[in-house]
Amino acid sequence: MRVGVFDSGVGGLSVLKSLYEANLFEEIIYYGDTARVPYGVKDKETIVKFCLEALEFFKTFKIDMLIIACNTASAYALEALRTRADFPIYGVIEAGVRATCKNLKDKDKEILVIATKATINSKQYQIGLKKEGFTRVKALATGLFVPMVEEGIFEGEFLKSAFLHYFKDVKSPDALILACTHFPLLSKALSEFFGSKTRLIHSGEAIVEFLKENSRLKLLDKRANLRFYASSDVKTLEKTAKLWLNLS
Amino acid sequence: MRVGVFDSGVGGLSVLKSLYEANLFEEIIYYGDTARVPYGVKDKETIVKFCLEALEFFKTFKIDMLIIACNTASAYALEALRTRADFPIYGVIEAGVRATCKNLKDKDKEILVIATKATINSKQYQIGLKKEGFTRVKALATGLFVPMVEEGIFEGEFLKSAFLHYFKDVKSPDALILACTHFPLLSKALSEFFGSKTRLIHSGEAIVEFLKENSRLKLLDKRANLRFYASSDVKTLEKTAKLWLNLS
Repeated sequence: MRVGVFDSGVGGLSVLKSLYEANLFEEIIYYGDTARVPYGVKDKETIVKFCLEALEFFKTFKIDMLIIACNTASAYALEALRTRADFPIYGVIEAGVRATCKNLKDKDKEILVIATKATINSKQYQIGLKKEGFTRVKALATGLFVPMVEEGIFEGEFLKSAFLHYFKDVKSPDALILACTHFPLLSKALSEFFGSKTRLIHSGEAIVEFLKENSRLKLLDKRANLRFYASSDVKTLEKTAKLWLNLS
Repeated sequence: MRVGVFDSGVGGLSVLKSLYEANLFEEIIYYGDTARVPYGVKDKETIVKFCLEALEFFKTFKIDMLIIACNTASAYALEALRTRADFPIYGVIEAGVRATCKNLKDKDKEILVIATKATINSKQYQIGLKKEGFTRVKALATGLFVPMVEEGIFEGEFLKSAFLHYFKDVKSPDALILACTHFPLLSKALSEFFGSKTRLIHSGEAIVEFLKENSRLKLLDKRANLRFYASSDVKTLEKTAKLWLNLS
């Protein structure tokens, strides 16, 4: 089984890591649109256009399945992509909503979704969670976490100041959905900030669970073969991938 | 005289504002590559490619002159652009170096250049200032100022925390070159942080002075006609322009 993993840049490597470690695929082809990243501050028309271009790229590989690792792309382009492909396409939002349902049995528990401005404005998480019966859902655009992670800021006073900036009126929720591929890199700091009561929902882990339950993938006894592509500077992407995935 | 102003996105509006208020042109055509912004975190090959595409766009308007408002684009693409155009092309870096010379007569005064990672890595300011005889030049990538400005953070604790993060080992310089179009929006906060000793050098003001001295432009008695283009979401660009330029 050959799967494509699409992301707006390097952030999707946090999702790739989960997929890679789950041993569900023979081959994973990762494509990051590094020349045009980020998507999270752009408008729907642009995001959909870029995603459809990526789809054409993936079609040249005869993939069996496509996973949209980027939350913003999942929020805006999933429908358009699905009408143009004859293989299944999964986004991280549906998976994130399912994972939240599994983690929170009680529907009046408090949920906070943090994501890019575009993902929050799409309301896809909010709608999905309400459909599942959750009544206390808050959503907050914390866009600056993306460039902070890209600058390697995972802890310290500056990050704490960013938390106070965004979360000054927020009480610790029961679940915090990390609805952007960059945010798992802030997991430790976010857990310290919100305390042990708050359960973190991670797009990569969510999509692995989702695939195990909703596709006919079999568990393999070895890691996938990995291939990396990018719209610019694929070397930096490969270097980052090796680091994040602990490859030698 | 019809001039083109190119920027990677909306940041160049700070340069456009200076050009507009200087009454040097009959018509100004502003093009922002909003679909692919930011350039400052990307590699040289990508930046040059995008700039050359922008040049082809400007050629369709029969412009008399092109101004590269984006420091990162000026740093990497100016030479490539000039070999492909039969009209003059000016970047903001040469202008910024000239403005610094005019402001600091004493060559051993301390200069701090702040910019995106790509602009700093290009070393164009550092080389230009050393050529002019300045001996104490420091350069610092303060990339997060860009998304902070885009989120409308111009003051407050979070911004102060960003200053402490980047400037913790920095003494107040004699001149601070705001080598990114977004940074003039932080002028007030930066002046308060560094104190009145530090003179701020602004790309927009620098390019106006440079044009007055180095081109044959005549002062007109009215504002230029403005036309806005963008690779995505031109309406948001126009709205921002009206705000920044105090147009009704």
